[in-house]
Amino acid sequence: MAGFQSLPGFREFYPEDFSRRQHIFHGWRKAANAFGFQEYDAPVLEPLELYTTKSGDEIEGQLFAFTDKGDRQVSLRPEMTPTVCRMVGAKAGALKRPIKWFSIAEFYRYERAQKGRLRAFNQFNADIFGEAGPEAEIELIALLIQCLAGFGLTKEDFYVRLSDRNLWFYYLEALGFDEAQTRGILSAVDRFEKMGDDAFKGYVEAHGALADDKQAKVLAFLKIKSLAELEAALAPFNSEKLAARLSDWRKVLDGVAAMGLAEFIAVDLGVVRGLAYYTGFVFEAFDRKGDLRALAGGGRYNDLVKKLGYADLPAVGFAIGDVTTGLLLEQRKLSPVYVGGPEIYVVIGGEAERKAAFADVQALRATGLRVEYPFKDLAFGKQFKAAAESGAKLALIYGGDELAKGVVKIRNLADRSEREVPRAEVLADVRSALGKG
Amino acid sequence: MAGFQSLPGFREFYPEDFSRRQHIFHGWRKAANAFGFQEYDAPVLEPLELYTTKSGDEIEGQLFAFTDKGDRQVSLRPEMTPTVCRMVGAKAGALKRPIKWFSIAEFYRYERAQKGRLRAFNQFNADIFGEAGPEAEIELIALLIQCLAGFGLTKEDFYVRLSDRNLWFYYLEALGFDEAQTRGILSAVDRFEKMGDDAFKGYVEAHGALADDKQAKVLAFLKIKSLAELEAALAPFNSEKLAARLSDWRKVLDGVAAMGLAEFIAVDLGVVRGLAYYTGFVFEAFDRKGDLRALAGGGRYNDLVKKLGYADLPAVGFAIGDVTTGLLLEQRKLSPVYVGGPEIYVVIGGEAERKAAFADVQALRATGLRVEYPFKDLAFGKQFKAAAESGAKLALIYGGDELAKGVVKIRNLADRSEREVPRAEVLADVRSALGKG
Repeated sequence: MAGFQSLPGFREFYPEDFSRRQHIFHGWRKAANAFGFQEYDAPVLEPLELYTTKSGDEIEGQLFAFTDKGDRQVSLRPEMTPTVCRMVGAKAGALKRPIKWFSIAEFYRYERAQKGRLRAFNQFNADIFGEAGPEAEIELIALLIQCLAGFGLTKEDFYVRLSDRNLWFYYLEALGFDEAQTRGILSAVDRFEKMGDDAFKGYVEAHGALADDKQAKVLAFLKIKSLAELEAALAPFNSEKLAARLSDWRKVLDGVAAMGLAEFIAVDLGVVRGLAYYTGFVFEAFDRKGDLRALAGGGRYNDLVKKLGYADLPAVGFAIGDVTTGLLLEQRKLSPVYVGGPEIYVVIGGEAERKAAFADVQALRATGLRVEYPFKDLAFGKQFKAAAESGAKLALIYGGDELAKGVVKIRNLADRSEREVPRAEVLADVRSALGKG
Repeated sequence: MAGFQSLPGFREFYPEDFSRRQHIFHGWRKAANAFGFQEYDAPVLEPLELYTTKSGDEIEGQLFAFTDKGDRQVSLRPEMTPTVCRMVGAKAGALKRPIKWFSIAEFYRYERAQKGRLRAFNQFNADIFGEAGPEAEIELIALLIQCLAGFGLTKEDFYVRLSDRNLWFYYLEALGFDEAQTRGILSAVDRFEKMGDDAFKGYVEAHGALADDKQAKVLAFLKIKSLAELEAALAPFNSEKLAARLSDWRKVLDGVAAMGLAEFIAVDLGVVRGLAYYTGFVFEAFDRKGDLRALAGGGRYNDLVKKLGYADLPAVGFAIGDVTTGLLLEQRKLSPVYVGGPEIYVVIGGEAERKAAFADVQALRATGLRVEYPFKDLAFGKQFKAAAESGAKLALIYGGDELAKGVVKIRNLADRSEREVPRAEVLADVRSALGKG
């Protein structure tokens, strides 16, 4: 029987698990629709080269890659970004801008199995193509917040850290670092929480900053937590690039504040995100308690569509994962109670009454009402027990006496009240009783 | 750029394609929920052995199978049945019976690419476990019909052919064929439409029926198209097995008729379905015109759960595909018109009015209303043009004059009527105007 376990890192979703996941998907979809994003879907399997072109050959070690029967190097998708760039890039001329798209899909990686590290996981991806200005960031950050707030999560539960990779580049350039040094320092910023102040300063020193005050400046920049601190740090420099970035920062923070979402945002230049392809703002969502991995992450990536061979199309996007979101909802008791049962349970007197019951069951179900009935003839008592256990609100009773009178008895299973309704009026009556009139 | 094409046989779903597919998924889900089926999901990748155990080693040639980095023989799933048997089998003791489950998922096969033969396709799967009687068939056939009728398809558009593999076994046994001969004849029945009468009779002769009248009887059995013909064909035999099957046939046809669905059903003993694991009723749905491949297919498979190493659990199920269903809906002009646009377009006077507009945009979106606004400052005329092109029903106008008075102007984009509403009442007003009060 061991051969029939599912593969390591792959999940089975039994109905109760499925309904929790569906609640998350539904919330994401509702938010994205409200924000005017269009839903798309894409292949689960792609040419390996799509990912190595974006991220370098070393990415292959983490991918669920293989050689297919046609001798193609392929990979189960580890992320949506290069795929959506291809789709948008291929039709860039025909799509109305700004292009606002989202998807909900499963992704795969092949890593050594660890506790909580799945090989298959789901993400919501939202991207805006064709808008170079910070208006796109405002729209996406507001959507990210709504994607979590829609479940009932508040600013006490999560927040979004905002940073800027290009600002780091321009700042380190203004301090006199060259590009190679800058990349080295940014990778240290990414690992700062594990390094601490002294190790970080040592790292900066080794990457070109021999002067003590330069090391201190880089360390202080990393610790910036407000727009005022950022303005103060940039004030000594007479750089158009830095001034332009600062103007964009004010626009993003003002825009998000105008939407009433300022308290969800934290300036945090310690966030640089490891992915080298970001070209501007980057952001990550975290739970406030800091118990969990990142809930979401994203940023601007203006170069990727062109790098993949299409038009020069500015882009910004983010992804939210289902696993961390699900854990946070569980912690905050915001996961839905599983309701698997019918709304209506049909109690059937016997074989003779089954025909009338079947006709009505079909008519009720055709309108979308959730209706169950017993497959086999059972005593009334057993059927009422099954009706009560099913979670149904109403029982419809098709007994010989009732049908002879041309009526159906309707029992409210909460208060056990009963009334008789002419058969022709059953559908309208139960729709009204269930608040669906 | 050729490296960034999607792989052969895999589909990209641009928003308009996605919305057509989503319409189909939504219809299936609505029907299954109404029938009290619980939704589940399962891994996209499984051990190869799961499929070879069910279908024999020769199935591997059709599978999207490969060896993973951990040296496991695996396959992208070609179907849901063995997976759902494992899931139900593993928890059979804890699940309340009858177990009624469904899923909507993508499946994969590796075949020589042909026109219209995709390597990735979607199916709705519904199964009932734990009910050996024909009540399960009634429920599933009614669900299958509702899964298509829910889109507006009628008995003029499609029908379900009902047959019975065990009845064939018992009938050929009664005629004196042994099991090996029977399997050979059934595989010929499966190919009958390509063979014709004479070739078929020749095949039957070669498989044990030397007598002319036996060949004729098998040929006549294959052509049975009604319960009356079936009863007549079985009348000469004094077989309990045949009598029991006939009783189940009457129950299924009576039950489906009681639901008002008789005209969707055709008795057709020419259907035997190629898959050897079926153990009773089998059924397939087709378009009436016969232009398309099968819409759906299924049947009873009482042995599979046990064969995979779990309890002896009777089972019956079917699958519907998205590709043929989509083609039929297109033919019948029942595909939805794509509505990608917002309900509300917000027109913004200038930078000064953007703040008030953003606050209301966020409040409207948080309730689920689909709202768009221009990212950049534009002249009013251009914004009204964009509003009209967006397909929105209402434009909300945040001009300097309006905001000074504490109002927002609401324009009905269909009849161009305008009225002013106090800002505090905008949300309630537009919900009511859009029929969502």
